[in-house]
Amino acid sequence: MKPKRSSPAAPPQALILAGGSGTRFWPLSRRRRPKQFLALDGEATLLQATLQRLQPLVEPSAVWVCTTAALCREVARQLPEVPRRQILAEPEGRNTAAAIAWSLSRMPARLRDAPIVVLPADHRVADPAAFRLRLGQAIEAVRERDLVVTLGVVPRWPETGYGYLRLGRTLDERSGLRRVSRFTEKPDLARARRFVRSGAYLWNAGIFVFRAATVLREVERHLPELHAGLRKMGRERLRVARLYGTLPAVSIDVGLMEKLSIVATLPLDCGWSDLGSWAALQEVRPQDDRGNAIVGEVVALDASRNLLFADSGLVAVLGVEGLAVVRSRDSVLVVPLERSQEVRRILAELEARGHAVLL
Amino acid sequence: MKPKRSSPAAPPQALILAGGSGTRFWPLSRRRRPKQFLALDGEATLLQATLQRLQPLVEPSAVWVCTTAALCREVARQLPEVPRRQILAEPEGRNTAAAIAWSLSRMPARLRDAPIVVLPADHRVADPAAFRLRLGQAIEAVRERDLVVTLGVVPRWPETGYGYLRLGRTLDERSGLRRVSRFTEKPDLARARRFVRSGAYLWNAGIFVFRAATVLREVERHLPELHAGLRKMGRERLRVARLYGTLPAVSIDVGLMEKLSIVATLPLDCGWSDLGSWAALQEVRPQDDRGNAIVGEVVALDASRNLLFADSGLVAVLGVEGLAVVRSRDSVLVVPLERSQEVRRILAELEARGHAVLL
Repeated sequence: MKPKRSSPAAPPQALILAGGSGTRFWPLSRRRRPKQFLALDGEATLLQATLQRLQPLVEPSAVWVCTTAALCREVARQLPEVPRRQILAEPEGRNTAAAIAWSLSRMPARLRDAPIVVLPADHRVADPAAFRLRLGQAIEAVRERDLVVTLGVVPRWPETGYGYLRLGRTLDERSGLRRVSRFTEKPDLARARRFVRSGAYLWNAGIFVFRAATVLREVERHLPELHAGLRKMGRERLRVARLYGTLPAVSIDVGLMEKLSIVATLPLDCGWSDLGSWAALQEVRPQDDRGNAIVGEVVALDASRNLLFADSGLVAVLGVEGLAVVRSRDSVLVVPLERSQEVRRILAELEARGHAVLL
Repeated sequence: MKPKRSSPAAPPQALILAGGSGTRFWPLSRRRRPKQFLALDGEATLLQATLQRLQPLVEPSAVWVCTTAALCREVARQLPEVPRRQILAEPEGRNTAAAIAWSLSRMPARLRDAPIVVLPADHRVADPAAFRLRLGQAIEAVRERDLVVTLGVVPRWPETGYGYLRLGRTLDERSGLRRVSRFTEKPDLARARRFVRSGAYLWNAGIFVFRAATVLREVERHLPELHAGLRKMGRERLRVARLYGTLPAVSIDVGLMEKLSIVATLPLDCGWSDLGSWAALQEVRPQDDRGNAIVGEVVALDASRNLLFADSGLVAVLGVEGLAVVRSRDSVLVVPLERSQEVRRILAELEARGHAVLL
């Protein structure tokens, strides 16, 4: 089959990054069932919600998913609308620069100039309409100019766990498209406060829109090892399996975006959350009149401001406050919400005890 | 078969009261699996430990169990050493006076003058040897005299949830057998403190030794309705089923013992506990160096003075203090230990929701 001539008028594509294997939502999340596969926020899983959120801007037939071999089957099960050949399985995770560049290299040449939306599979958006409005503007901007447009989240508190985008000169008055003049990784609290107060910064949510041609060109220039590695590897299955682990493992932000002068941003105000912990989930879920966020079969008496999550069976609490209580089929976690980011310590302990089945 | 002539030299018998259906150990205890059937304190269930504790003073072949029809099969399963016909099933619970008098009436006439130990199935004894020493003395006392001997627990704190026995004049210098001059039901804290300080009181643990003839005679005198009811009912199965519910429902303490002048007591210091709540269990179980009592598969990080009970699956806690966390196959309970006696409120809520299967 002869590749068609690529065209900026080709329908926009999306690349969902679904290779994550976080531990923050243990005991619900497991190695084989990471966060993106969980219905933490409603009926759909975060992965399914990510796909739904793109429609109708990006049709499921134009969606690509980059995941790992271990997770590939579950991705296909959860996203039956996505063509199976567009679910790409990395032999192993090599961070986002490799995942994105490799996925782009797997797309047909006719899509080289189509706008491509790259986004994580495990975030939450409270207002999908607001998200789509911005995304549509970003797609238009990329059709018109040789830009990488990132959707930057309007910061709501001085978060020290995120990267920040500094707003540069305005490129488009109507949409508010502005140049990104600097990327700043996780600042300390004093800086984060200044950033938020200044109004000149957005959170980097890892959502990008660009043309494949643009990013592949910049990878060749700024990540020559990755470029060479991908060329050497080619598309032959066994060769990919053998060589993928030799690709440089760097994030797309640090490896590429920070070095580019063509990055622009649109401010996103859509109730975005990266759901980084049980505490983050407690904040975004609907709460009862005592501030308890409740999922599943739960009895809560004299209890306030808890996250009570019964994925299986019953959770019953009495007289407790500020706790995450999460029951899965085989485990239960009890931790103060303010310490819920320490869950990984429990996994380390389980690993030390050889309880691989619970990880 | 002609009844043999009864004799005080007949081997001592025991009557284990195993009809209880408490809710205090929910979610482990259920209507069909009350506390006495649970292994709360070691490998054996409390019922099995009760039987073991009696040996060799009372052989299993001389043990009788009074339980309810609903629990009868489980009693037989847990106590295969006890002759099946000695497991007596009340059609329904009618409190301890009826349970004891009915059970005594079911025993063969040849045992009417044998010493009979009556004891609850769901208590804990840390030092069975000390228990047996006192029990042996009580059996001897009952062989020699027409007495009801109760083993009174040397009080360790001013508990307001127990009954107290006031010590009267000494009957036997060697064993310390003393008359009980008064029964006092649950005193207020000030009185309980005085009682404990005075050294003149013991806790009423509901453990009695007497001859059947003695108690049946006193029932006839002090509980004539019960006596008449038992006579009228007889031993025919359907008749028992029909009439048992008409027996007066009163405790043996209030209905009988308080009215007798022949009650004596021996002081018992054997690490007794009635295990009235998860908090009581936390106190008696071995603890780790941070005061956590742990049962089953548990991970506890930065956690102190908790009861962590995994009857099924894994319990993982981090950064919590003073909690009971109990995981059963289908439920999990999280409650501060100091409020663990309020568990019944959760059951009321489940009942209101129609979750009978969880009760």
